[in-house]
Amino acid sequence: MSTPKIVILGAGYGGLLTALGLQKKLNYNEAEVTLVNKHTYHYLTTWLHEPAAGTSSADHARVELDRIVDMQKIKFVKGAVQSIQSTEQTVTLENGDVLSYDYLVIALGSESETFGIEGLKEYAFGIRSINSVRQIREHIEYMFAKYKTEPHRTDYLTFVVGGAGFTGIEFCGELTDRVPELCKEFDVDPELVKIYSVEAAPTALPGFDPELVEYAMNVLTRKGVEFRISTPVKQCTPDGVVLATGEEIKSKTVIWTGGVRGNSIVEKSGFEVMRGRVKVDEYMRAPGHDNVFVVGDCALVFNPEGRPYPPTAQISIQEGENTAQNLVALIRNAPLTPFVPALQGTLASLGKGEGMGVVFGGKKVFGTSAALMKKASDLRYLYKIGGVGLALSKVKL
Amino acid sequence: MSTPKIVILGAGYGGLLTALGLQKKLNYNEAEVTLVNKHTYHYLTTWLHEPAAGTSSADHARVELDRIVDMQKIKFVKGAVQSIQSTEQTVTLENGDVLSYDYLVIALGSESETFGIEGLKEYAFGIRSINSVRQIREHIEYMFAKYKTEPHRTDYLTFVVGGAGFTGIEFCGELTDRVPELCKEFDVDPELVKIYSVEAAPTALPGFDPELVEYAMNVLTRKGVEFRISTPVKQCTPDGVVLATGEEIKSKTVIWTGGVRGNSIVEKSGFEVMRGRVKVDEYMRAPGHDNVFVVGDCALVFNPEGRPYPPTAQISIQEGENTAQNLVALIRNAPLTPFVPALQGTLASLGKGEGMGVVFGGKKVFGTSAALMKKASDLRYLYKIGGVGLALSKVKL
Repeated sequence: MSTPKIVILGAGYGGLLTALGLQKKLNYNEAEVTLVNKHTYHYLTTWLHEPAAGTSSADHARVELDRIVDMQKIKFVKGAVQSIQSTEQTVTLENGDVLSYDYLVIALGSESETFGIEGLKEYAFGIRSINSVRQIREHIEYMFAKYKTEPHRTDYLTFVVGGAGFTGIEFCGELTDRVPELCKEFDVDPELVKIYSVEAAPTALPGFDPELVEYAMNVLTRKGVEFRISTPVKQCTPDGVVLATGEEIKSKTVIWTGGVRGNSIVEKSGFEVMRGRVKVDEYMRAPGHDNVFVVGDCALVFNPEGRPYPPTAQISIQEGENTAQNLVALIRNAPLTPFVPALQGTLASLGKGEGMGVVFGGKKVFGTSAALMKKASDLRYLYKIGGVGLALSKVKL
Repeated sequence: MSTPKIVILGAGYGGLLTALGLQKKLNYNEAEVTLVNKHTYHYLTTWLHEPAAGTSSADHARVELDRIVDMQKIKFVKGAVQSIQSTEQTVTLENGDVLSYDYLVIALGSESETFGIEGLKEYAFGIRSINSVRQIREHIEYMFAKYKTEPHRTDYLTFVVGGAGFTGIEFCGELTDRVPELCKEFDVDPELVKIYSVEAAPTALPGFDPELVEYAMNVLTRKGVEFRISTPVKQCTPDGVVLATGEEIKSKTVIWTGGVRGNSIVEKSGFEVMRGRVKVDEYMRAPGHDNVFVVGDCALVFNPEGRPYPPTAQISIQEGENTAQNLVALIRNAPLTPFVPALQGTLASLGKGEGMGVVFGGKKVFGTSAALMKKASDLRYLYKIGGVGLALSKVKL
């Protein structure tokens, strides 16, 4: 009997934790594990609002994979996935290479959900990857520089953040920290800079406790954000956005954070999806495919009340760990363990030294303590994937 | 008899040195001196190739005027000059304010000379001011960031420097230093980055000794610059440049350093000019205007062989000093001193630790010693305008 082949597609939270779990649990020659990823690095999606605003460097939010993955145990393939042929048990990469598998882990992450809003795909930025946030940061700086050579163009100094969910709110927190620095660097009057947070839902941070929402909005309003709540974006153009209210905001920088859907490769490969996500079984497997696990933003998991869990890093990490455990079980013919998330609370940052959230047990936290807890949770993750050395190397003092 | 009013237009090399000379030489109430400038700072035009490439910050190349000018002795007006009415002895600013003068010093600097080349004004950048070089730096960074999200667009990584005179060559030197840093920051393969230096004249650095020209071209070629000499630019478009040879270079970044002419305000105000420059008398006065001095890039001064001196900082500085001396003489009814430049050599930088030039006596210098001499000469200038404190504050170690 030949060594079973496990192929993991994607080295985000879900894929990386699957790989690290297998690296730890598998014995020599029990399986041949291949990790496929577009980049040679893993990035911390939940940190990307910082480098996007320019309050920290993009390098800070990524870790080279060879620093955390044992490349002797896990075969790494740098490449972008083009399609999955589940009948043939193969994966085709964009460069034409074909990988065959016995077990597959789909951890391909998400795509921006634009809800059919005209112009968003063409003209809005997304906080989506190391490359995209470097572009956002450079674009913002470029706008300040351009304004100084065309001082009638105040639209260069207007920033529209579409979506007041987690990412949108955290990005606003960073951007309000960054603006005074940019104004100083480029000799721009801070009064001229406008930041709008636009949200279609009747509240910012839908799903959050109203007291937390109010706190976040107060902090950000004080820092200069203007909110447009219950206000869908109707259209995005090269000159800004048109809101459903008819209001037009002239801006050269629209950043869309209005939601995500699963990677379209999954649907194109014939898996049944809802908004790009596969409704997995209790072991995180695609229905009808006992050898295909789906984790992270491509997976749809329901809570006991029948509502889907939000696509968070926290859940993706746990899904990856659970999947690693179940892959080992399958190889050893042992029983599988159902996936049950252990929710540890949610913390949002609102810029330097500011945050809010709920911690384990439902306790609400605010301000500096929330910001510190968030940093502690980030450090715990780095420790988990790369040990003390990695955690310490990323601490900003 | 009322106190005579001296108005100085512009705080570049010529205007600033006039103001500083007057500040030093004039007794209390001998004259009322007003210095008009667009910005609250003086900038070192000859340093601008560094912040344009991003190898030093724009702040490094400027000095707040209140740090060097005694605002008790010199009245400072922040404003842009719109026109000069020499008959009425008044100056009108863009905000509508009118200043009257008994003596005027025109030190309004230069404008880019585009020689009628189509599209240059619209699509090319110029290394012209703090604001313009910050824009160039941000634009270059933005191109690297954009390339990473549109990796087929190698034109984002192609940079065309029009004009291989002093500024063009020095900028190429800095840019070749900066590119490896940018490649590292944005994960870009350095092989993909192209820098072209395009010059219409039959040689780079026209007017320089051929041995120096060859040295500079060798250094820059080794650092990755491709030269197109004897090759006029025919047209600049949003997509790049078309050369007279028919060659088309696709690029989103064309930086034009092909020459300067005097500020057009001078001609519009009725002074007789050649390429925007006033052919001044031996005391730097506009013909027919005994109370109007013209210094710096707006003035045309001929050498004993009948050829115009190039528009350099060195000569502007000396013109300002001479003019301050002559203004004091006019006020005191003393004889005027003709302007005779003391040429101290010319040094060009070719990036970090590299340079070449001729020093006093005609001796040629190369490499690190030339680069050091250039830094020494920059420090001498800072010492001249702001003393030891200013000079030390700008030293990069």
